[in-house]
Amino acid sequence: MIISSGAFVSDNGRLRGENVAGSVRRLKDLPGLFMDDTAYRSMDPEQIVYEVQLHNSCGSAEGGLLFGTSTVTPGKVGREYFMTKGHFHEIRNRAEYYWGISGKGVLVTMDERRQASTVRIEPGSLHYIPGHAAHRIVNIGDCPLVVGACWLADAGYDYDLLAKEGFSVRIVEENGAPAIWSNK
Amino acid sequence: MIISSGAFVSDNGRLRGENVAGSVRRLKDLPGLFMDDTAYRSMDPEQIVYEVQLHNSCGSAEGGLLFGTSTVTPGKVGREYFMTKGHFHEIRNRAEYYWGISGKGVLVTMDERRQASTVRIEPGSLHYIPGHAAHRIVNIGDCPLVVGACWLADAGYDYDLLAKEGFSVRIVEENGAPAIWSNK
Repeated sequence: MIISSGAFVSDNGRLRGENVAGSVRRLKDLPGLFMDDTAYRSMDPEQIVYEVQLHNSCGSAEGGLLFGTSTVTPGKVGREYFMTKGHFHEIRNRAEYYWGISGKGVLVTMDERRQASTVRIEPGSLHYIPGHAAHRIVNIGDCPLVVGACWLADAGYDYDLLAKEGFSVRIVEENGAPAIWSNK
Repeated sequence: MIISSGAFVSDNGRLRGENVAGSVRRLKDLPGLFMDDTAYRSMDPEQIVYEVQLHNSCGSAEGGLLFGTSTVTPGKVGREYFMTKGHFHEIRNRAEYYWGISGKGVLVTMDERRQASTVRIEPGSLHYIPGHAAHRIVNIGDCPLVVGACWLADAGYDYDLLAKEGFSVRIVEENGAPAIWSNK
């Protein structure tokens, strides 16, 4: 008998089945992330900003891989689009793949010298994030932004370096369209 | 300005753009793979059995990742369904993710003690292939089987161990349906 797979990715990017776990980030979980603190404090703290689902069959084993999807809600805090916190990998040379599943977004990457780059995410777009690059996704559309990801299980996550200075660019609405603002 | 991604995955699994390369395996490239050599020699040697497309932005760097899609043509050699050669990774603990994009298939894995397992591949199915497991995909349907994959760039490929004895199971048509035959 040929058995079924234990896990599935739906067309909308939802993972289900064995070894799938999820976490949700609400506005209240993300103080200091957005530049406009007055706008931030005026909003519903329970508002979901993004959700991450993870398929993990190997813990953090060397040589292992993790697979996930991230869904960023459409919305803004002031002029700044909803986005993920973003992180460097703790083991700095660990790469990651992202690919667009649905929605319109921007992938922001930044190296350790704070050199940033920004690339459009759209359904089918494929993005190689090399080691030593922090990465974040930003929803610039009106629908949920859903992105698939695969990365090394032992990579780890370093949020500390970004907690101080953040990314060197922000994605904001300017004249009705997304623009890149410097955040020196 | 937010630039476009350099590479894309189409709905049918075709990769296009920067850093994309492909290779094709025809019947003439696969002598000894299928059990029925008489049937094999009666077929068009130019018949494509499978194609692999690869997005490679990092060579074989430690910590890097590769992304690819494999497309297996529907067909059989005698009673045995078209399939990929399959391989172990040269660095044995290197894992790989597969996910079904379209078509109906079987993922065959086998450890170094020749213990095999077989799992159905279908659109959306997600498959973690741990280290130390040879892996092959088999098309049991009437349409192309398209599978996405992500794996560690330094994994390497070991075909030699399989060249001698092959996998310990074969997927063959029996009474109009796929069956698992032992290949001791």
